[in-house]
Amino acid sequence: MPQLPNAEIITIGDELLYGQVIDTNSAFLGQELGKLGIRVRQITSVSDRADEIVTALDLARTRADVVLTTGGLGPTKDDLTKHILTEYFGTELVLNESSLRDVEAIFARFNRPMLEVNRQQAYLPATCTPIRNAVGTAPGMWFEDKGTVFVSMPGVPFEMKRMMTDTVLPRLARHFQVPPIEHIVIQTVGLGESFLAEQIADWEDALPPNIKLAYLPSLGAVRLRLTGQADGQPNLRGRMEALLPELRRRLGNHIFAETDIPLEQAVGQLLAERGLTVGTAESCTGGYVAHKLTSVPGSSRYFLGSIVSYHNDIKIKELGVLPETLAAHGAVSEEVVRQMAEGARQRLGVDVAVATSGVAGPDGGTPEKPVGTFWLAYADAHQTVARKISFNRGRQLNIDYATNSLLNLLRLSLPVS
Amino acid sequence: MPQLPNAEIITIGDELLYGQVIDTNSAFLGQELGKLGIRVRQITSVSDRADEIVTALDLARTRADVVLTTGGLGPTKDDLTKHILTEYFGTELVLNESSLRDVEAIFARFNRPMLEVNRQQAYLPATCTPIRNAVGTAPGMWFEDKGTVFVSMPGVPFEMKRMMTDTVLPRLARHFQVPPIEHIVIQTVGLGESFLAEQIADWEDALPPNIKLAYLPSLGAVRLRLTGQADGQPNLRGRMEALLPELRRRLGNHIFAETDIPLEQAVGQLLAERGLTVGTAESCTGGYVAHKLTSVPGSSRYFLGSIVSYHNDIKIKELGVLPETLAAHGAVSEEVVRQMAEGARQRLGVDVAVATSGVAGPDGGTPEKPVGTFWLAYADAHQTVARKISFNRGRQLNIDYATNSLLNLLRLSLPVS
Repeated sequence: MPQLPNAEIITIGDELLYGQVIDTNSAFLGQELGKLGIRVRQITSVSDRADEIVTALDLARTRADVVLTTGGLGPTKDDLTKHILTEYFGTELVLNESSLRDVEAIFARFNRPMLEVNRQQAYLPATCTPIRNAVGTAPGMWFEDKGTVFVSMPGVPFEMKRMMTDTVLPRLARHFQVPPIEHIVIQTVGLGESFLAEQIADWEDALPPNIKLAYLPSLGAVRLRLTGQADGQPNLRGRMEALLPELRRRLGNHIFAETDIPLEQAVGQLLAERGLTVGTAESCTGGYVAHKLTSVPGSSRYFLGSIVSYHNDIKIKELGVLPETLAAHGAVSEEVVRQMAEGARQRLGVDVAVATSGVAGPDGGTPEKPVGTFWLAYADAHQTVARKISFNRGRQLNIDYATNSLLNLLRLSLPVS
Repeated sequence: MPQLPNAEIITIGDELLYGQVIDTNSAFLGQELGKLGIRVRQITSVSDRADEIVTALDLARTRADVVLTTGGLGPTKDDLTKHILTEYFGTELVLNESSLRDVEAIFARFNRPMLEVNRQQAYLPATCTPIRNAVGTAPGMWFEDKGTVFVSMPGVPFEMKRMMTDTVLPRLARHFQVPPIEHIVIQTVGLGESFLAEQIADWEDALPPNIKLAYLPSLGAVRLRLTGQADGQPNLRGRMEALLPELRRRLGNHIFAETDIPLEQAVGQLLAERGLTVGTAESCTGGYVAHKLTSVPGSSRYFLGSIVSYHNDIKIKELGVLPETLAAHGAVSEEVVRQMAEGARQRLGVDVAVATSGVAGPDGGTPEKPVGTFWLAYADAHQTVARKISFNRGRQLNIDYATNSLLNLLRLSLPVS
């Protein structure tokens, strides 16, 4: 196998060092370069000062074959990157006609007057290959200098991502003759990372040397990524797919998707495929389950509505929970959460409904029902099921975890059409 | 004024370079150090490899007076930071009794058996000052070497933040004899950054040289931070506060808080102070307004519930929107959103209700009501007000912006008690 290139990332901007902005660009770049098999050796964030940027470039090129920078390409005075690169590579700014047309088109589209500072953005270093910015006014730049590739992109995540996907990643793959690489994502929910690893340890050990497995854990879920590098044999993808039936057998219905979609989208696809409508009745999650379900574009096909019943009066009046059940068992109980799910199904006129009632914290816990106690329920025409979970890592993470658990309960309980 | 120290941050971990984890620690550190007047010169993320960590330390100390590292302190084999630092400073690991007691206490609290790897975590380099970890098993370390301070902390944000606040920041302030510094935060909503800057340009220009203003913009809101450095004159805080009446006069009711709390908490405080209850009726925001309001601990004092009416049948049945209004004006209209707010007030039995109906996108737009068109309404016993906004930067940002705008409408419309 040919040697794969190393990369370094330099993110530029005082706002990163002051902590006003969290750098999300580096993680995106690391993930995308990783998919090509390009390893990121270091990420460096520097201020908008020329000397610091030049030092970072000098050091990065000693370690990496490709140096990607983001930031400092805007039209204002503190955006220095283009001028610094022009000097760094000993060249000069010249008007790039095609970039000028792009910038003009952007202003025409938004029907705004174009300023001289924006026109200046179409002046680019003579030795660079411009990288088209389909969604903003600052073009990117590709330089090759003494065997190192330098790529400069805007800091706006939306613009940078589009530029990477459309232009930079394909060009890097060609330039470095990156061997074909294949990825398969298997997403699981409801199994801890170490337990999952134990379940598939011997399967993983038996993988051929050119196929690697990565664990990407998040709250209650683990994404598995299988990466195959070309080994001169035909049909790499087919050989990877042949490994999956055994993995599926081991993990069973913990697998919720074999593509890179969130759990709420996987659940939405099931609902749409089976022609079912859904609604929620939420106490402790306060509308977050409804928010997650409706964060998916097109969710109005299956999501009809919710009743957030924070106050017990609303549980009684809008969901039909019996006052005597509340009095006997309290709001955080199996009995109440079942009535909430069944009531939501009736009131919202949906095929299936889910419900939550719990103690999100930080206050409100009791010895019998400490903070982090959550009752979840699911109801359809044939059955109502309830489940209790305990999880306490702070209010927002508790709400997140309860929401993911409820979405999983919904996924596993849906009637097969 | 004495020379303030420079800092550098080194975040350690393969997961950062692979992009599996977004580095949020650096932004927190940058903000907190900035409040002391300590400037972060550079942030570097490196892998768990000894040679790369040592190189990063060598370079950082040439530029900075204090080097803070996060990560690599866990109990597993890839956690190398402690061993690398032990060798880097030419010392050896010795058992630290007080750290051992802390680790034992953590395990006792969670009633779990303590493993030998956890006991190992109480072995620390002989020349370091241990930094207590109040919420985890890995102690931090403070080294002083040839005039540079090195601080090593865990990568878990929760543990690192607690360590910074409890120990590291006060110790840095003492060690570097950082002069007293004062901060005042003024939070505004509903004014663009450049418009806001124009409104207060001459006020800002007239600030004394030891008082600086920073703009920290986010979606629809701008946080202003006034930072005063000691200048040998008495009562710095009082002199800063004397500047505020004029700022308040210029910005009027765009100011929603003079402390560092989110908009939903400021709104919640108003509701609690005035003894009012609130509910929401949500279409396009799908429960996100309810989620925001209930993300504040203690919100059950004023938040009673919501009806998420994604489907028009639920707008009619649960909120009392008239079918003929829907037919005549469509769901995204002033008429419907007013009826939603008024209906929610009645049905939920709340003092005030707010409502949303809009086109969050990416699909569903029409020439008259393009994606990003939102109608917002507020209703109490005396009035119903509605407002139209347009904002289109992608589904989630659209929902965020509409939610912030509605919370602001709620804040500005609440009756004075």
